[in-house]
Amino acid sequence: MTLTYDPTPEVLAEIDRSQDEARHRLFDFLAIPSISAQPDHAGDCAAAARWLAHEFASVGFATEMRQTPGHPIVVGHYPGPDGVDPASLPHILFYGHYDVQPADPLDLWESPPFEPQLVPGPQGPRIVARGAVDDKGQVACFLWACRAWYNTTGGLPIRVTLLLEGEEEVGSANLEAFIAANKSLLKADVALISDTGMWDRTTPALTTRLRGMVYTQIDLVGPDKDLHSGMYGGAALNPINALTKILGDLHDDQGRVQIPGFYKGVDELPPSLAAQWAGLGFDEPAMLASIGLTDPAGETGRSALERMWARPTADLNGIWGGYIGAGAKTVIASHAHAKLSFRLVGKQDPAAIMAGLKQFLAERTPAGAQIKVQDFGGNPAVEVSTEGPFIAAAEAALSEEYGKAPVLMGCGGSIPVVGTLKAQLGLDTILMGFGLDDDQVHSPNEKFEWSCYLGGARSHARLLAKLAALR
Amino acid sequence: MTLTYDPTPEVLAEIDRSQDEARHRLFDFLAIPSISAQPDHAGDCAAAARWLAHEFASVGFATEMRQTPGHPIVVGHYPGPDGVDPASLPHILFYGHYDVQPADPLDLWESPPFEPQLVPGPQGPRIVARGAVDDKGQVACFLWACRAWYNTTGGLPIRVTLLLEGEEEVGSANLEAFIAANKSLLKADVALISDTGMWDRTTPALTTRLRGMVYTQIDLVGPDKDLHSGMYGGAALNPINALTKILGDLHDDQGRVQIPGFYKGVDELPPSLAAQWAGLGFDEPAMLASIGLTDPAGETGRSALERMWARPTADLNGIWGGYIGAGAKTVIASHAHAKLSFRLVGKQDPAAIMAGLKQFLAERTPAGAQIKVQDFGGNPAVEVSTEGPFIAAAEAALSEEYGKAPVLMGCGGSIPVVGTLKAQLGLDTILMGFGLDDDQVHSPNEKFEWSCYLGGARSHARLLAKLAALR
Repeated sequence: MTLTYDPTPEVLAEIDRSQDEARHRLFDFLAIPSISAQPDHAGDCAAAARWLAHEFASVGFATEMRQTPGHPIVVGHYPGPDGVDPASLPHILFYGHYDVQPADPLDLWESPPFEPQLVPGPQGPRIVARGAVDDKGQVACFLWACRAWYNTTGGLPIRVTLLLEGEEEVGSANLEAFIAANKSLLKADVALISDTGMWDRTTPALTTRLRGMVYTQIDLVGPDKDLHSGMYGGAALNPINALTKILGDLHDDQGRVQIPGFYKGVDELPPSLAAQWAGLGFDEPAMLASIGLTDPAGETGRSALERMWARPTADLNGIWGGYIGAGAKTVIASHAHAKLSFRLVGKQDPAAIMAGLKQFLAERTPAGAQIKVQDFGGNPAVEVSTEGPFIAAAEAALSEEYGKAPVLMGCGGSIPVVGTLKAQLGLDTILMGFGLDDDQVHSPNEKFEWSCYLGGARSHARLLAKLAALR
Repeated sequence: MTLTYDPTPEVLAEIDRSQDEARHRLFDFLAIPSISAQPDHAGDCAAAARWLAHEFASVGFATEMRQTPGHPIVVGHYPGPDGVDPASLPHILFYGHYDVQPADPLDLWESPPFEPQLVPGPQGPRIVARGAVDDKGQVACFLWACRAWYNTTGGLPIRVTLLLEGEEEVGSANLEAFIAANKSLLKADVALISDTGMWDRTTPALTTRLRGMVYTQIDLVGPDKDLHSGMYGGAALNPINALTKILGDLHDDQGRVQIPGFYKGVDELPPSLAAQWAGLGFDEPAMLASIGLTDPAGETGRSALERMWARPTADLNGIWGGYIGAGAKTVIASHAHAKLSFRLVGKQDPAAIMAGLKQFLAERTPAGAQIKVQDFGGNPAVEVSTEGPFIAAAEAALSEEYGKAPVLMGCGGSIPVVGTLKAQLGLDTILMGFGLDDDQVHSPNEKFEWSCYLGGARSHARLLAKLAALR
């Protein structure tokens, strides 16, 4: 096949024609409970990997399942269309993940998390399932685009390498080592990831800033057994009292994190960027209302977008200790625990945050308490360039699909692989995503709008043509 | 039977002779999992009540099971020996409870909590089971003494009323109303309760002060669903952050509780009492070592006994929220909870403590958080007189059994019925108990020393004779 004409309209028509089939395929993918955090779902993770390998193989990729100490990584290669010198073609590395968050609390799901449904919504139908948007639905956008190109033209117009992992939700412990050990397998011109969001339902976006993360668990032990709170109350260290006193000190009254050195590497927002973001018209009251709140939270004196995209955070993700069943039990618990994670911005260094946390805790640990900090891993914040032909191709693809230029936005979340792809493979990343803020990511009733699945597939199809045109 | 001689030596010999039988009877009682806090053990609570009714009936009591909105109350009457004018006999009201604490965490028990064992210990054998000392073993001391009197002399030398409930571990919600509605059924000269401790293994004690209690649960809700901590971190209220910040303020750096009005009604210890307690030679380092600690805790500048017997406390008994499973989940939880209870002293008023707590929380609730406080009930502190013939009878019984005078001690725990018996029935209470500090009350591997069971039964047997002699 030679690109003497632009087959994009036919490819898009094929996408429009194949919606039922695309729904069935995605539902099959979503039905696999590939929960990476839970060891008893390891078999499901492998099954999800195999599903992806098979699907991409059916549209012309050479795929292989690569074992790791954890869940397998799927690597695939499409060498470009026949009769074209591969070296002349742009080469993208598409990264995605097939693992999903745990589904609990199960009782809050309106339909079972691994029995995908297409249900009516306020602005059209949506798919409801764990992983619908994070990340299976968005990987499926790319897959659908590839299948449409394959069915229309016999193949893809550029070179594509696939890097699909199964541990993103648990910190990608094995990914960096795999990438470092397989650089020649994974070389490309630019990376492409679909795991972020649109500005709103009708306005596309490219994400140019991601926060970093550090995730820890704090374990505090006091007495060597649970105690009667009458016998020992007032005389023995109470680990829950101690832990709450320490954690209560994490923020001052202006919402600033009190860990030593925490703000090192955090720069003030450049005025031009602040002005750009202010011009986006972000509706904070609507965002708060969508989660049942009316009052802003976080650092005082900062705009909502600044707090979500450009300021670091400390969030307790879980806490437990003592008697948590029904009724009363007059116990002083032997131990108490908390899961504490941080979002990083700018040049904040994960190792420095961990050291600061340990110092913060050590300065506050009461006599008799033993504190241990478990490090579940971390990665720094990332900024991607807004210049260059690849991001311009993405801007063009999105502008044509949606009739308006994409917003260049930040993201409060973290995608650690972006930093790894740059550091290990020298790749910038196009972050072109199709999620929406109300998709309930990491929550019960996670959903993916049908219009986003369709628009995402069409956008990816357009992008492949735009990239081919760079040749 | 007429008391023209003192049958105490024969009764004691009967106790010594019947140890195997007494072990079997207590084991039968301990094997009933009468956990009042857990509704699926309601049938077991009724079974434990029936066991007591049957056992006391077999030694001459007229017993009945009285239904309540909760677990049944066993009432029994022994009218005194034949041929003696009951009005001439001292009349005690024996109170006990047949319900027990929940057994969790189960994995820390060395033997199953409801399969009682007699196991070797550092200073002799002990019975291990939930309820072994709190309170079944100690009720069994009294029962064993009654059976020995019955087997030796055909009956008891005084009048006895039994009041045995099944909700002590969950706040005795139905007891006060029952007592108030049955005053004539329960009238007596003095009450007797065996649910406290000895000073040490060889030194008996009478407890003369008990702390009061208030037990609450705090529920804090923020967003109306769990949120992704990347998307919303820094912008949305985090209920666990909020709850720990509030609870971290409960104590100042000297260990004083910061609830408004908390110390109203708390008096300084009279110097004479402080001197008395100092003279008891309490071994604080040994107490701390027995629970795996070396450093004291609680209010600075107060002795250990003062902190445990004469100062109020605020203890978090449980805390939970968010993701508490294995690994990492980057969630901002929708809600967070804590169980918080207080021990009261002096004239502290439970209602005032609740009001102070609500004010403390209201002053610290951040915008957007909803806080609810559940009141699981409360009772004020109690002091019993150290003067009078009844307590003198108890002092004499214990002195003769142990060869030394009993210590008049405080207790950090609460026995709310003592206040109710005074207020409703005008009764003082003899608090003559046989527990030891290392009995693991409310913890896994709760035990009751065989020497305490035996000594407790013998002491109760002696007490019955001493009381009869008051006639």
